[in-house]
Amino acid sequence: MYKVAIIMGSKSDFDAVKPARDTLIKFGIETECRIMSAHRTPDIAHDFAKNAIKNGFGVIIAAAGKAAHLAGVLASSTILPVIGIPVKSSTMDGLDSLLSTVQMPSGIPVATVAINGAENAALLAVQILALGDKNLAEKLEDYKVKMNEKIVADDKAFQNELE
Amino acid sequence: MYKVAIIMGSKSDFDAVKPARDTLIKFGIETECRIMSAHRTPDIAHDFAKNAIKNGFGVIIAAAGKAAHLAGVLASSTILPVIGIPVKSSTMDGLDSLLSTVQMPSGIPVATVAINGAENAALLAVQILALGDKNLAEKLEDYKVKMNEKIVADDKAFQNELE
Amino acid sequence: MYKVAIIMGSKSDFDAVKPARDTLIKFGIETECRIMSAHRTPDIAHDFAKNAIKNGFGVIIAAAGKAAHLAGVLASSTILPVIGIPVKSSTMDGLDSLLSTVQMPSGIPVATVAINGAENAALLAVQILALGDKNLAEKLEDYKVKMNEKIVADDKAFQNELE
Amino acid sequence: MYKVAIIMGSKSDFDAVKPARDTLIKFGIETECRIMSAHRTPDIAHDFAKNAIKNGFGVIIAAAGKAAHLAGVLASSTILPVIGIPVKSSTMDGLDSLLSTVQMPSGIPVATVAINGAENAALLAVQILALGDKNLAEKLEDYKVKMNEKIVADDKAFQNELE
Amino acid sequence: MYKVAIIMGSKSDFDAVKPARDTLIKFGIETECRIMSAHRTPDIAHDFAKNAIKNGFGVIIAAAGKAAHLAGVLASSTILPVIGIPVKSSTMDGLDSLLSTVQMPSGIPVATVAINGAENAALLAVQILALGDKNLAEKLEDYKVKMNEKIVADDKAFQNELE
Amino acid sequence: MYKVAIIMGSKSDFDAVKPARDTLIKFGIETECRIMSAHRTPDIAHDFAKNAIKNGFGVIIAAAGKAAHLAGVLASSTILPVIGIPVKSSTMDGLDSLLSTVQMPSGIPVATVAINGAENAALLAVQILALGDKNLAEKLEDYKVKMNEKIVADDKAFQNELE
Amino acid sequence: MYKVAIIMGSKSDFDAVKPARDTLIKFGIETECRIMSAHRTPDIAHDFAKNAIKNGFGVIIAAAGKAAHLAGVLASSTILPVIGIPVKSSTMDGLDSLLSTVQMPSGIPVATVAINGAENAALLAVQILALGDKNLAEKLEDYKVKMNEKIVADDKAFQNELE
Amino acid sequence: MYKVAIIMGSKSDFDAVKPARDTLIKFGIETECRIMSAHRTPDIAHDFAKNAIKNGFGVIIAAAGKAAHLAGVLASSTILPVIGIPVKSSTMDGLDSLLSTVQMPSGIPVATVAINGAENAALLAVQILALGDKNLAEKLEDYKVKMNEKIVADDKAFQNELE
Repeated sequence: MYKVAIIMGSKSDFDAVKPARDTLIKFGIETECRIMSAHRTPDIAHDFAKNAIKNGFGVIIAAAGKAAHLAGVLASSTILPVIGIPVKSSTMDGLDSLLSTVQMPSGIPVATVAINGAENAALLAVQILALGDKNLAEKLEDYKVKMNEKIVADDKAFQNELE
Repeated sequence: MYKVAIIMGSKSDFDAVKPARDTLIKFGIETECRIMSAHRTPDIAHDFAKNAIKNGFGVIIAAAGKAAHLAGVLASSTILPVIGIPVKSSTMDGLDSLLSTVQMPSGIPVATVAINGAENAALLAVQILALGDKNLAEKLEDYKVKMNEKIVADDKAFQNELE
Repeated sequence: MYKVAIIMGSKSDFDAVKPARDTLIKFGIETECRIMSAHRTPDIAHDFAKNAIKNGFGVIIAAAGKAAHLAGVLASSTILPVIGIPVKSSTMDGLDSLLSTVQMPSGIPVATVAINGAENAALLAVQILALGDKNLAEKLEDYKVKMNEKIVADDKAFQNELE
Repeated sequence: MYKVAIIMGSKSDFDAVKPARDTLIKFGIETECRIMSAHRTPDIAHDFAKNAIKNGFGVIIAAAGKAAHLAGVLASSTILPVIGIPVKSSTMDGLDSLLSTVQMPSGIPVATVAINGAENAALLAVQILALGDKNLAEKLEDYKVKMNEKIVADDKAFQNELE
Repeated sequence: MYKVAIIMGSKSDFDAVKPARDTLIKFGIETECRIMSAHRTPDIAHDFAKNAIKNGFGVIIAAAGKAAHLAGVLASSTILPVIGIPVKSSTMDGLDSLLSTVQMPSGIPVATVAINGAENAALLAVQILALGDKNLAEKLEDYKVKMNEKIVADDKAFQNELE
Repeated sequence: MYKVAIIMGSKSDFDAVKPARDTLIKFGIETECRIMSAHRTPDIAHDFAKNAIKNGFGVIIAAAGKAAHLAGVLASSTILPVIGIPVKSSTMDGLDSLLSTVQMPSGIPVATVAINGAENAALLAVQILALGDKNLAEKLEDYKVKMNEKIVADDKAFQNELE
Repeated sequence: MYKVAIIMGSKSDFDAVKPARDTLIKFGIETECRIMSAHRTPDIAHDFAKNAIKNGFGVIIAAAGKAAHLAGVLASSTILPVIGIPVKSSTMDGLDSLLSTVQMPSGIPVATVAINGAENAALLAVQILALGDKNLAEKLEDYKVKMNEKIVADDKAFQNELE
Repeated sequence: MYKVAIIMGSKSDFDAVKPARDTLIKFGIETECRIMSAHRTPDIAHDFAKNAIKNGFGVIIAAAGKAAHLAGVLASSTILPVIGIPVKSSTMDGLDSLLSTVQMPSGIPVATVAINGAENAALLAVQILALGDKNLAEKLEDYKVKMNEKIVADDKAFQNELE
């Protein structure tokens, strides 16, 4: 089975990224969680991306803030799907990260999720891997059913509370 | 091999969506190009999404403008990866479409590409399918090499022009 | 008399929604307050909307954040007026919710109020119901008069304070 | 049956407003289409709003651009539902009109539709009036069905074209 | 000498408005500080504006948040200069208030200052009144000189600190 | 009677500024229309502002685009009221000009009108000068009445057209 | 004397970039104008940047649109000053390019100029090189004087026209 | 060796500016840290800029918030490179400062760094000075290497933690 790489631009992004790792672990997917910088260690990032397929990765998740180039840099050196998580930083309320991640030029897509949307980044990775893994697909179906049921249960509990 | 669905919210979105279809055809991927509306024909959209796996689809691409809910609606009824193309309409310069597509709540990811980023939506779909298809992976590597070479050639031609 | 449904996308939206319920109760309008998700339980949402008229509802209020599709999803399955409350979430200061709620395509209107504007959503519902209910219309007139008087009283108290 | 007023801030807004009138006429609803300015003729606007109920109106639609106060001004003098159409003008791409129309303070709701969303403003008015008018409700159901069918027909025609 | 009116949309705006009053008092200008609402008490607002000249006012300052119509409403009923202070509220970081205040249509200007710019609103009022009052003009010149000197003093103190 | 200065940042701003001059001429106010640049000829701008009072000016209108500093620069060297017109340029739809003009720090107000709001800049200047000039005040009252009447006439003509 | 590199992300950026080259030529600075892509030819871009000093460059100017990473990529591989020109593309009015270029993380500055601000990018490069080149400094002083004189001449011509 | 000036618009900007000074000191560059206001003490600012070269400065860094004109004002009076730090203030999340600093008209560039990007402002100054100072260039190379190594070390430590 493919592994999923979670790359963050700096140690301080781990809080925003953690739900991605937790979700992947919940699905039994092997992850590798790394700190690399598009600007400080571009060679390491490019090398990682170039070797990602041969090292057993199926998807790369990249999280960065501000002028968030990390996902784009990784995507430029691999044909693996790269998922970008725009991380909200102290100014511009996440808009800078979002636009820097999603507005990629033709040729190099980044599959962008919501600002700070780490859980969805992981689920998207699982969806991608599930195309070639029936077991994973079943787990996703279960997950979806449970999500639904939780809303239904929340709704019921809430009705009781209101009465 | 998996097919790719391209769903657009209205006939008028086809210009924005066409590069996705052209690119998928170039890669030899069977596509089905449909018009469905998140708001006018939600049942058709949900049915399509629910049956997409059994109908042989591997990825769904959805393009819509303004309060662009189409990708989200499709994603809510399938575990397939759904790629969203925010289409620029006559006001707000694409920002409304982008935010409506990308800012999905936890549990239902939409892999969002740039505003009007149809070619990248197709390439992302190819990348996803290439995980399980070595032939496609090779085509992608070729595509990437040719993109590089085109830039290099453009650069050379440009140097000559300037002299 | 018609009931008013208040639908929220998740339990956590109740704080933002509560003023709507309180206001409707103040006007003696029967409400049903439910949790449904446009993306997690779309079938429940569509069913609710489809049966809303026959179940005695006259207006549906929907509150959601981020890529706020809930109001649009409900509106797509009913001819009842649907009022959307864009809920501010942790990023983008409510702009994503507002645009996702208000920028609906032709054919499916959502009557959008201010970001976190739950009280106004309720008042709008009362205004709509008051068209067919003289008693309610009188209560609204009273409410308006009291609002005016409160401003006048605030102004007077304030003048005294300043002296 | 109630009439619907369509108030625009200046003669130049008529192009943006016309789809509202056309739609209401299609539904057999009597309209009165007026030019009034929140800032130039506030007394006329307030008088119109104050007398709207006794003059047989059930809904007021107001369209204005820039610092679009017209809907709010009318809403302040009536308990009728007021629907606001933010009109895009030459700068700010409609954002100024949208925020000025929708961000109303507690107590005075304006039911805001999309920027330049005149058709939806009319449909919302019809939905409101249909609460007390079975005939109108049936027409709306028909309208909805035809919208659906048009998408389905567009989809089929499109499939044929592609082949 | 002319008085200056300071009108705020609700009691809760007083914190944002207070520096305007303090500044005017510092310049020896008689102020009247009132609570009026563009939407709740439009008649009172219009009456105030219509009678402002004959009641001895030379400038009206209006502060409001969200869809901030107060300054525009006052301006529509007087030929006095009206200064608008956009007040930041809980969403949209002041952008809604700013656009609603400044983007006035031709014919009815509002002299807009910065978001929460109460001190500048007062200074602008003083500048306007100083045109016809040499004594006030001198005070303004003094004020300007002292502002300059304060920056120079801050700079010196700061140099010493750094050493 | 005071003159009004109209300063523009470059020759190309004259189209945006012309309605200000035309309006002032209509009111019989002597204007001086100048090209000065906050950045290219700051000394000339400061000198103009410093000597504006003694040269008979009562108000300064400044129009500039992009990082529109011209109004602020003039305001820093005079105690006359300075009115800023943010001019829309080729990017950012006027938002940059608006924020650069209106968001002035405490101490140096700029009375900002709408983006490209030259006519209102002139009317605001007239309002300011009318405080000390009864004749001008009467003209303004007339102007206001005529504006009202034009809307009323437009409305009537429009009613006839529709029939 | 140092050369200046002008790197653009694609051939289509040349129109936006040309004023930079023209300005540098006017100052007698040797330029090298190249097409390189942060995403398509990252190795070429990094190699160029790494060798820029030893190849005689003193400043690198980079122009790109959308998620404009080019300047950042170049900056990550050199200690030369890198000047970024955000190029306006077909959506978002340049805001995406601006934020992607300017919001760089600590450690890797990009000296950003205005959207499409190619002439200023060149002037900034000249200013930087002039620090070590008295001849160039004199040319800059001349340039500045002529700019001033042009405004003064424009102003005079304009006064004559108006009379 | 050239000195670097750090000019801030008010004492309260020092927190945002301090990392610039600390960084320059780390590189052994003599700094002069001053408080000057574009609007309150424009003469002092212009004089400082005009005499900056002869007083031994090579670069000027200017930090200001809101309608941030300080960098532009300084740039208008010198041919030295001027680096602008947009400082986030209490409204608009830094967007006003950014646009006011970066959107300079042709002829007067300001090298703009990220909102609150003081460290990068200093590094950019060092890069500029390093063009004429081999010793400084070496220090920069070292700094870059250490930044890289820190990321690598963070990454390793992080891997260990995760295990």
